[in-house]
Amino acid sequence: MFLGKVIGTVVSTKKDERLIGHKLLIIKPLSFKNDTGSKPMVAIDLVGCGVGETVLVVQGSTASRSLDKENAPVDAAVVGIVDTIETAGSKDEDLY
Amino acid sequence: MFLGKVIGTVVSTKKDERLIGHKLLIIKPLSFKNDTGSKPMVAIDLVGCGVGETVLVVQGSTASRSLDKENAPVDAAVVGIVDTIETAGSKDEDLY
Amino acid sequence: MFLGKVIGTVVSTKKDERLIGHKLLIIKPLSFKNDTGSKPMVAIDLVGCGVGETVLVVQGSTASRSLDKENAPVDAAVVGIVDTIETAGSKDEDLY
Amino acid sequence: MFLGKVIGTVVSTKKDERLIGHKLLIIKPLSFKNDTGSKPMVAIDLVGCGVGETVLVVQGSTASRSLDKENAPVDAAVVGIVDTIETAGSKDEDLY
Amino acid sequence: MFLGKVIGTVVSTKKDERLIGHKLLIIKPLSFKNDTGSKPMVAIDLVGCGVGETVLVVQGSTASRSLDKENAPVDAAVVGIVDTIETAGSKDEDLY
Repeated sequence: MFLGKVIGTVVSTKKDERLIGHKLLIIKPLSFKNDTGSKPMVAIDLVGCGVGETVLVVQGSTASRSLDKENAPVDAAVVGIVDTIETAGSKDEDLY
Repeated sequence: MFLGKVIGTVVSTKKDERLIGHKLLIIKPLSFKNDTGSKPMVAIDLVGCGVGETVLVVQGSTASRSLDKENAPVDAAVVGIVDTIETAGSKDEDLY
Repeated sequence: MFLGKVIGTVVSTKKDERLIGHKLLIIKPLSFKNDTGSKPMVAIDLVGCGVGETVLVVQGSTASRSLDKENAPVDAAVVGIVDTIETAGSKDEDLY
Repeated sequence: MFLGKVIGTVVSTKKDERLIGHKLLIIKPLSFKNDTGSKPMVAIDLVGCGVGETVLVVQGSTASRSLDKENAPVDAAVVGIVDTIETAGSKDEDLY
Repeated sequence: MFLGKVIGTVVSTKKDERLIGHKLLIIKPLSFKNDTGSKPMVAIDLVGCGVGETVLVVQGSTASRSLDKENAPVDAAVVGIVDTIETAGSKDEDLY
């Protein structure tokens, strides 16, 4: 899994019908300070989160299997809202 | 999933027969401004999209399972056409 | 699999119920000296490790299947605590 | 899937027996002009391609399932030979 | 699959019991000359290779399924020892 910030949503009228009813969230993954290669992702919402929140995202086929619908074309899902991140305190281990 | 722009198509005469009848789209993933590592991908079309459109792409084995054909050799599929992307407005969260 | 250092934990009250009871560890992957693209990950703990330890992490759907719960929304798990890393000694093969 | 150029072959005498009889191709993925992070891959050949050709490569567990052999230890397969790539013409969308 | 060099081994006393009896190899992936983003990986040994050898590595859930043990928490396996790499000879296609 990875930690990310919900930075927006996607509106799509013409889409695979198995996606209907699922909120599509744009996620910016948290990264270490000197990394500039963070890539935006889209995940469905399983926990009721909102823009601005830090969340836990699961990727891959397990994201699809964690839904009820069979063969849902989904490869990422928000599975937790993060209250706090507890790190040991070293500066180069901070997350941004 | 990720957001991308359809920038072209692939013509392939000699291919696995399970790919026959599927349009092969070249996708340029959207990225944040200071990321230069965007890699071109090829996805099949499940929603009827065209060159120039911004789309939602699903990756991995779920892309294959979302088709009807058994064991289709596919690892990416366009599953939605994007109408609008709604972000909170911070510049470093814009997508390109 | 990859080697990483446990640098912290994630506290999440509102989460998928299949994650309840699993410690969520933040992992910093080990990398070669001139690589600056290391990305933080979150893994569940299968072996009872703690912050500061170097661990072995498995990714993908096998991480989910290695749990008892069906369809657990998990894509990374700590499956070993590293005692020692034995390398041949070339400087550009050291891990950081 | 991704587009790549077949740049060579791998000779391996001592290998998993389920790989016997499959040509092992070294693939250089096509990338956009300003990306220098292209990584070499090895894929088996499902279509009868040769060195120098541009091909379509599928990755992941679907590559394994597209073979006849059960549990073949394969995660990439060439599934098409590319005749032409048709892009809209913008320079920063050219593939190299 | 990818090509890599075996650069060391991992010693882990406290680990998932399904990993017992499997040698854990540290692999440095081969890359093209101007790529500095090579990341160390850990793979189990299916062919009896040693430190210093160039090997073929398979990743993902197929690596787990290629073992006998059910649900082995493994996502990478060495499936061949490389005798020779035959490339067409262009300098920017050499592997390091």
